[in-house]
Amino acid sequence: MNFKKFETDEELVGFVLQHTDLFAADAELVVSEIGDGNINFVYRVSDQHGLSVIVKQALPYVRIIGEGWPLSQDRIRIEAEALQIAGKYCPDLAPEVYRFDQQLCAIVMEDIGSHENLRHLLIERRELPLLGNHLGRFLAQTAFYTSDFYLDSYEKKDQVSGFTNPDLCKITEDLFFLDPYCDHERNSINDHIRIEAEALWTDSALKFEVAKLKAKFLGQPQALLHADLHSGSVFANAIGTKVIDPEFAFCGPIAFDVGSIIGNLLLNYAGQSALEGDVLQRSAYQKWLLETIKTLWATFEIQFTTLIEEQGCEPTLSQTEYVDWFMAEIFTDSLGYAGTEMIRRSIGLSHVADLESIENAEARAGAERLSLEVAQHLIKYRSSFTDMASVCDWISSNYKLL
Amino acid sequence: MNFKKFETDEELVGFVLQHTDLFAADAELVVSEIGDGNINFVYRVSDQHGLSVIVKQALPYVRIIGEGWPLSQDRIRIEAEALQIAGKYCPDLAPEVYRFDQQLCAIVMEDIGSHENLRHLLIERRELPLLGNHLGRFLAQTAFYTSDFYLDSYEKKDQVSGFTNPDLCKITEDLFFLDPYCDHERNSINDHIRIEAEALWTDSALKFEVAKLKAKFLGQPQALLHADLHSGSVFANAIGTKVIDPEFAFCGPIAFDVGSIIGNLLLNYAGQSALEGDVLQRSAYQKWLLETIKTLWATFEIQFTTLIEEQGCEPTLSQTEYVDWFMAEIFTDSLGYAGTEMIRRSIGLSHVADLESIENAEARAGAERLSLEVAQHLIKYRSSFTDMASVCDWISSNYKLL
Repeated sequence: MNFKKFETDEELVGFVLQHTDLFAADAELVVSEIGDGNINFVYRVSDQHGLSVIVKQALPYVRIIGEGWPLSQDRIRIEAEALQIAGKYCPDLAPEVYRFDQQLCAIVMEDIGSHENLRHLLIERRELPLLGNHLGRFLAQTAFYTSDFYLDSYEKKDQVSGFTNPDLCKITEDLFFLDPYCDHERNSINDHIRIEAEALWTDSALKFEVAKLKAKFLGQPQALLHADLHSGSVFANAIGTKVIDPEFAFCGPIAFDVGSIIGNLLLNYAGQSALEGDVLQRSAYQKWLLETIKTLWATFEIQFTTLIEEQGCEPTLSQTEYVDWFMAEIFTDSLGYAGTEMIRRSIGLSHVADLESIENAEARAGAERLSLEVAQHLIKYRSSFTDMASVCDWISSNYKLL
Repeated sequence: MNFKKFETDEELVGFVLQHTDLFAADAELVVSEIGDGNINFVYRVSDQHGLSVIVKQALPYVRIIGEGWPLSQDRIRIEAEALQIAGKYCPDLAPEVYRFDQQLCAIVMEDIGSHENLRHLLIERRELPLLGNHLGRFLAQTAFYTSDFYLDSYEKKDQVSGFTNPDLCKITEDLFFLDPYCDHERNSINDHIRIEAEALWTDSALKFEVAKLKAKFLGQPQALLHADLHSGSVFANAIGTKVIDPEFAFCGPIAFDVGSIIGNLLLNYAGQSALEGDVLQRSAYQKWLLETIKTLWATFEIQFTTLIEEQGCEPTLSQTEYVDWFMAEIFTDSLGYAGTEMIRRSIGLSHVADLESIENAEARAGAERLSLEVAQHLIKYRSSFTDMASVCDWISSNYKLL
């Protein structure tokens, strides 16, 4: 194996100069490590004029744990290819890949440093007028062009095999669909909501619905997913949005991506019930979050169905009745997956700052309880909702600050 | 490429002697070509004592067409592996593979010459007391051990990639799910049922249900399927059953296999309405066919659920509520796939002797019409049936000879 971790700034700079022609001959390149993730190393390489690129390198093990938790480096090949596909169909919404080096397991890509981590923006209650539209378009474009509606069955089967991603899928299979529904040692549960968590473990109606969602995650390769589309995988500013880090990419149910990001917006909604700050502002922000979810879904739905109509290559699947039914299924399951994301972020291993930054444990429990209640309702009664407006109405009328 | 078609008996005998030690040193081996299929070459190699083996060789093109219709030889690797899996879990129900030679694209396997082609047996109205039980067991065992209920997600994903079979799947995608639902040049339609065929092409409710079934065929890898389980892929006698020819094997919806074979039994039911012979005998045989379908389903259902209960490795999916729901889904979709098999065999490219052997075109049209009517009802109203007894009651009360 010829893999070699970048050990010095000189190695990294040499790699970047070899792989891009962005920088002038007299460029003085500076390296800073910027990765805040748990798994990979991420560096920014900048010159004295403000030009910069990002280098992401995948190690054969989990960064914060070390060699004791090995992880397939194939994930970086998958990430590079998924970024390139997103870049092909919505170039403004994903960082451009300048180069992928298979041997060094490293991607040189566009620096999206003018954008900020969406999770932080949400916690700061920043209203981003284009976010819902951008996310809806990202979801529609990436799903359509990698689905049976567009690809022929040879291309589709190649894509399913090419994006086989067992290590990363296994993380989701366990953390989303197993741990939170039993007394698992990996769970992390606020003492104040222990009773609610335990009640959830014995709710067979809930677990039945989660089993259906898990079965689709395991065995419904509808399209190439990002598959880790939480707020921390989105960077944004007032005018732009960038979706990054698709190392979990695999072919799965489209609703998983749609539901994951909706779940993250609703986690922030839950957080706003107990975060610090003016109650009027928090209440207004909750309204903005629900409006964003409605815009996201409306954009996704109209763009996806328009793409089928205009570019669908599969006559059997392009019939109106089937498309309507298909979109209704995606809608319903998106609510379910939103619920599974909210539950696993409230009582599972990996929590979110939208809730964790509420310092008072009792106040935090209130927000976590809200999250669990909304999530369970979405999972169990997702078929009772026919449009996103009624979902948002139900949430705002049952869980309002004012 | 080192592939070489067997050109002489000597080559074939040499190959068999090299790959098996079944035959004695003084064996005088005789070769006969026995393939009646359109695609491959099949030979029997026998000695003077009655010992024999079968050799099946896959050419890089379709046998009856020639080099003008190339076909991936990977299908023979897939067939060999699928036979070995069936042999592992129900050894009495599949021919034993003695050897697979990748380079020559040839399998040396058990001669099942004491069994006869099920399609011929059905046309002769032979009652096979163990057939329903054997087929139900074959379906349960092969589906369970290759499903998410048993395999871990790494093994399952390997299996999905390893059985990627685009050339053969494409045949089914077109011949089952596309051609019969439009005026396709590949279709072959009895003039006397032209009106019924045309009516079907404009039935949007039917085409909607077919789209759902096609979508699952394209994108629901529940288990490793035989995927070509018609009566000609089953050989049987009074005491035994052998399922052969799994070259279409891929990971797909379990109901496709269950429905394909049920559809073939119902095609014979339709044929009996107009085949020659005593009407009492034909009516009795129709009853036996329906009893066989009930036994097949009951055996499949009890064995599959028992396997989940006793050997299921996936806790989320092994919950009673989910298993019940899952089995109900398989039941419903099996009726749908049975319908698609009946329709494509009645008006599509590839017909079946159960209907084709009715020489009088008007009489044949009556049987084909019966097939189309039952098929359309099964596809469109499959959700209205809750058990196989009511399906069979509906058929026997609406389509009885006496």
